[in-house]
Amino acid sequence: MPPKKIILDCDPGHDDAIALLLAHGSPEIELLAVTTVVGNQTLDKVTRNALVVARIGGISGLPFAAGCPRPLVRGIETAASVHGESGLDGPRMPEPTLALDPRHAVDVIIDTIMREEPGTVTLVPTAGLTNIALAVRKEPRIAQRVREVVLMGGACSGGNWTPAAEFNILIDPEAAHIVVNERWPLTMVGLDVTHQALATPDVVARIAAVGTGPAAFVVGLLEFFGEAYRRDQGFAHPPVHDACAVARVIDRTVVTTRYAPLDVELSGALTRGMTVADLRAPAPPRCTTQVGVGLDRDRFWDLLVDALERIGEPG
Amino acid sequence: MPPKKIILDCDPGHDDAIALLLAHGSPEIELLAVTTVVGNQTLDKVTRNALVVARIGGISGLPFAAGCPRPLVRGIETAASVHGESGLDGPRMPEPTLALDPRHAVDVIIDTIMREEPGTVTLVPTAGLTNIALAVRKEPRIAQRVREVVLMGGACSGGNWTPAAEFNILIDPEAAHIVVNERWPLTMVGLDVTHQALATPDVVARIAAVGTGPAAFVVGLLEFFGEAYRRDQGFAHPPVHDACAVARVIDRTVVTTRYAPLDVELSGALTRGMTVADLRAPAPPRCTTQVGVGLDRDRFWDLLVDALERIGEPG
Amino acid sequence: MPPKKIILDCDPGHDDAIALLLAHGSPEIELLAVTTVVGNQTLDKVTRNALVVARIGGISGLPFAAGCPRPLVRGIETAASVHGESGLDGPRMPEPTLALDPRHAVDVIIDTIMREEPGTVTLVPTAGLTNIALAVRKEPRIAQRVREVVLMGGACSGGNWTPAAEFNILIDPEAAHIVVNERWPLTMVGLDVTHQALATPDVVARIAAVGTGPAAFVVGLLEFFGEAYRRDQGFAHPPVHDACAVARVIDRTVVTTRYAPLDVELSGALTRGMTVADLRAPAPPRCTTQVGVGLDRDRFWDLLVDALERIGEPG
Amino acid sequence: MPPKKIILDCDPGHDDAIALLLAHGSPEIELLAVTTVVGNQTLDKVTRNALVVARIGGISGLPFAAGCPRPLVRGIETAASVHGESGLDGPRMPEPTLALDPRHAVDVIIDTIMREEPGTVTLVPTAGLTNIALAVRKEPRIAQRVREVVLMGGACSGGNWTPAAEFNILIDPEAAHIVVNERWPLTMVGLDVTHQALATPDVVARIAAVGTGPAAFVVGLLEFFGEAYRRDQGFAHPPVHDACAVARVIDRTVVTTRYAPLDVELSGALTRGMTVADLRAPAPPRCTTQVGVGLDRDRFWDLLVDALERIGEPG
Repeated sequence: MPPKKIILDCDPGHDDAIALLLAHGSPEIELLAVTTVVGNQTLDKVTRNALVVARIGGISGLPFAAGCPRPLVRGIETAASVHGESGLDGPRMPEPTLALDPRHAVDVIIDTIMREEPGTVTLVPTAGLTNIALAVRKEPRIAQRVREVVLMGGACSGGNWTPAAEFNILIDPEAAHIVVNERWPLTMVGLDVTHQALATPDVVARIAAVGTGPAAFVVGLLEFFGEAYRRDQGFAHPPVHDACAVARVIDRTVVTTRYAPLDVELSGALTRGMTVADLRAPAPPRCTTQVGVGLDRDRFWDLLVDALERIGEPG
Repeated sequence: MPPKKIILDCDPGHDDAIALLLAHGSPEIELLAVTTVVGNQTLDKVTRNALVVARIGGISGLPFAAGCPRPLVRGIETAASVHGESGLDGPRMPEPTLALDPRHAVDVIIDTIMREEPGTVTLVPTAGLTNIALAVRKEPRIAQRVREVVLMGGACSGGNWTPAAEFNILIDPEAAHIVVNERWPLTMVGLDVTHQALATPDVVARIAAVGTGPAAFVVGLLEFFGEAYRRDQGFAHPPVHDACAVARVIDRTVVTTRYAPLDVELSGALTRGMTVADLRAPAPPRCTTQVGVGLDRDRFWDLLVDALERIGEPG
Repeated sequence: MPPKKIILDCDPGHDDAIALLLAHGSPEIELLAVTTVVGNQTLDKVTRNALVVARIGGISGLPFAAGCPRPLVRGIETAASVHGESGLDGPRMPEPTLALDPRHAVDVIIDTIMREEPGTVTLVPTAGLTNIALAVRKEPRIAQRVREVVLMGGACSGGNWTPAAEFNILIDPEAAHIVVNERWPLTMVGLDVTHQALATPDVVARIAAVGTGPAAFVVGLLEFFGEAYRRDQGFAHPPVHDACAVARVIDRTVVTTRYAPLDVELSGALTRGMTVADLRAPAPPRCTTQVGVGLDRDRFWDLLVDALERIGEPG
Repeated sequence: MPPKKIILDCDPGHDDAIALLLAHGSPEIELLAVTTVVGNQTLDKVTRNALVVARIGGISGLPFAAGCPRPLVRGIETAASVHGESGLDGPRMPEPTLALDPRHAVDVIIDTIMREEPGTVTLVPTAGLTNIALAVRKEPRIAQRVREVVLMGGACSGGNWTPAAEFNILIDPEAAHIVVNERWPLTMVGLDVTHQALATPDVVARIAAVGTGPAAFVVGLLEFFGEAYRRDQGFAHPPVHDACAVARVIDRTVVTTRYAPLDVELSGALTRGMTVADLRAPAPPRCTTQVGVGLDRDRFWDLLVDALERIGEPG
């Protein structure tokens, strides 16, 4: 089976950085482009962070492009409490060497999907959905042309940034509404899955044991991220959200899903930005949306460790 | 310990009827009044049904009073698909013999609470919360005077009447908002609990084995209710929702709860009538709201069978 | 023509006080009861103020009853910036002498309407609509039994407390929604009318010229109210809102109206508490709601001056 | 004074067609580009209509570009009841001869603004605001670079498509929210103005008297549009909405405005898509939004007749 072509739309972000390294180090995946969008930090910072990760992981030969600096309708809300001032606080960060693609992320997404064979490109958004929403509104034909969308975001039972809403959806609920209501096959990998991807000490030890620069970088990320999650969210260990979406593309069996009608609340006083999956009954026959419900933790961490092994020492 | 004094505000309704029999047959409870409100069926029907159950269970010597025929703001929505045209379809129903109290349910609730010692009366609403909301708005002092409110309604993860909302809250969300935001101690016994109270065949058999008229009546209710839930909601066995709230009053350990800030969504396009509990972290110190999370099934069914044994053959 | 029987539901409040004196001094009106509700100030204060005005105007022989101390769903919002700490700041206020009726305002409203002949009682709310909403939910038959509802509140184009909402509707939008959507004949006398009832210096002079204690009291009210409106709302002269509703009952021709479908917005982020009249086309045949659009100013002030003349010196 | 450079973003549409001819025939305006967007009819139809008007008016030498085929979040709602199946029903329509620019309207808008001198380009949207919203989200720098935005849409008191909302705002309220909340100088020319621009018989006669093909075309448009407005909206004569925005750019004095804070309601049950201007007091010092309140009718129709005279018979 040829590798799956993906566009990673992200806002690194500790778990985005790990997701990017996982994608890069996995032979099941061919990374066509990396696009960035405001989210965990401002656009400038997350874009710089993506290029930093590219250097650390030895990722090159594909476009990195910056996208939208603010959400569609709502104001900017970042996650500095969890990701720090730089958006990637913790490990030492080298200067980026890769140059940004001059195009807007939205055009890179459109151009890439329209250039590749129909049904071959998977969109993997691990941030607010502003870029993806703009792309499908500017070029509606991409909805029929992508293979699928596998996104990190949302939750079936309870949020993290508000009692009901998860951060990636909350920060641009209108964009999420657009993306979730398009007729492309879409899998939501939400908190129900990612809160099972906790980087416990044994996991961190396995990663450290890889012994390379990129592995040490990941360990540094997990240490800062773990401390922030302990202090700010009351977690014993940090959930590595975004890597779960990439893992789902590498191996569908890592994330258990069920089909369910899915939508995004735009107007609730308590529930704005909440993903609403209808889990009351089996999904109707032509339902195109799936929600993640379980994670094969062992397999998930194996995938990450294997990817880091493969990346080795790029420098 | 003296029995707990309760006012049961209900809309019988199959599971309300069972809840009423459970309360009547349990020595831990002293039933002060039964009040009715539009819900599973129109006010006329549920009020008549309450009197029917009184006759079947031999319940007398306390006021039965009718309350509000429609919700505060929204139009009337009944649950005929589950409870049938009468609201209590299934078993043969005798003519009621008890006379209604001439007072409005709202005044019965207020008068009863203000007459009894402070801190002694528990409100047990198992229907839409219209009566309770009107009572506390008309006489705000009842909020300080009740012992607690233990209600059946709401859910922490997923509704039954919409993807996000449970029927009792959905049919009068403004009333629920009023009740949930008052400063009385309040326990929400929602779908997370009641969907564990499934009347499986062995349970029905145990009840049938009691061998009395009231027990046969309950079996008849469960047969109709079970069929309706199978056909309409895709359940293998029917959840006996309302009895769970009464069981919680009889024995706190039957329903496991946790403290959590609780509110009701009034304005969402997808989430109106959803209860929103903040389960992200331990509740703040003075939190007065608890949500049910688990049910001791064996103990629950024991309580019901014991109550029916005690009721015996009232006729 | 016999006088029109009215119940005045109010929150005095400067313009409520004037409305009460206007009703009392007009032979076209028979005042059956005065009920109070939280609004311009807390329930305690506005209730005391109503009794103060009764003493000043020599009003007795009818029940004064206190109602709801808070709105249905929203928190309490008073208008101290316009009415002062007492709710009736300005003139010297004597101690009240009349005793309150022991009944709740909601029950006084219900009892009065159910006791009088059908079709004879007009409800005149000049405050938030909490009492009226509770009354019609507790006793739905009053909706068929009243003659009509003539309320001060709302606006067709632009609010006063928010860009879109008027104070009386805004402070309890759910109650207003209940009242406006009942099937009784209802006339909304809103800002489109009342902003034409400005107490200009010549009007104040005419009232002063009456030369009685009650007239001097009204002048004192208008002086404080005028200063507050100048300072806080940018008005050259204060609008005597509530008296317009009473004037409409005295003489229909004082307020020009048109029939229009009418509703209240409950969920807008910018428009909560806005009255929405559909003025795009002639109203449908069975439309029961009218909105005020014009005021015969000369006639209006004549009515008030005449009433004060008639009240004389109640001493 | 050099002519004002404008981009006309439209959905012809009878009044859009007239607005385009007015812009083309006015020496005060230099038309840089015409962009189209779904609105009065589908994107295909309004785009074709724009090219038809170009041929009739002899408009060439500038890009015509198609934009978004659907609103950001809401579904498509057209105005076929007023504009007919083609979007420009009525007069005979020749085949278009001009070719579309291959670029997306959003990129034409961005490229044009970024190419011209800062502060020289006026955006004139006379349709739903989808294209403009996407342009400013894709390239935020245009917000500082345009001269101003003069749009047809919205209303200060009462809508046309719902009781509270005007069509252009209603069909894409999220886009309108984006556009209205940007920090560019913006003038809303809404129904308060355009309902004064009624094409009465004397106006139609003046246009007919011009005696050219384009004038006859405008007469044909007004006849169909007038009949549709009579039948469907209860107007005696049709309001030529969109031309008012162009007229404002030609001569500021044609449309009287006042500064006022302005916003768009996204979540109301009755008021979604309503523009909310705060007219309660003078605008704060740095307010950048103006709303139209009056129209110099004579001057307006003079501008249109003069423009048609200048266009003559384009051959």
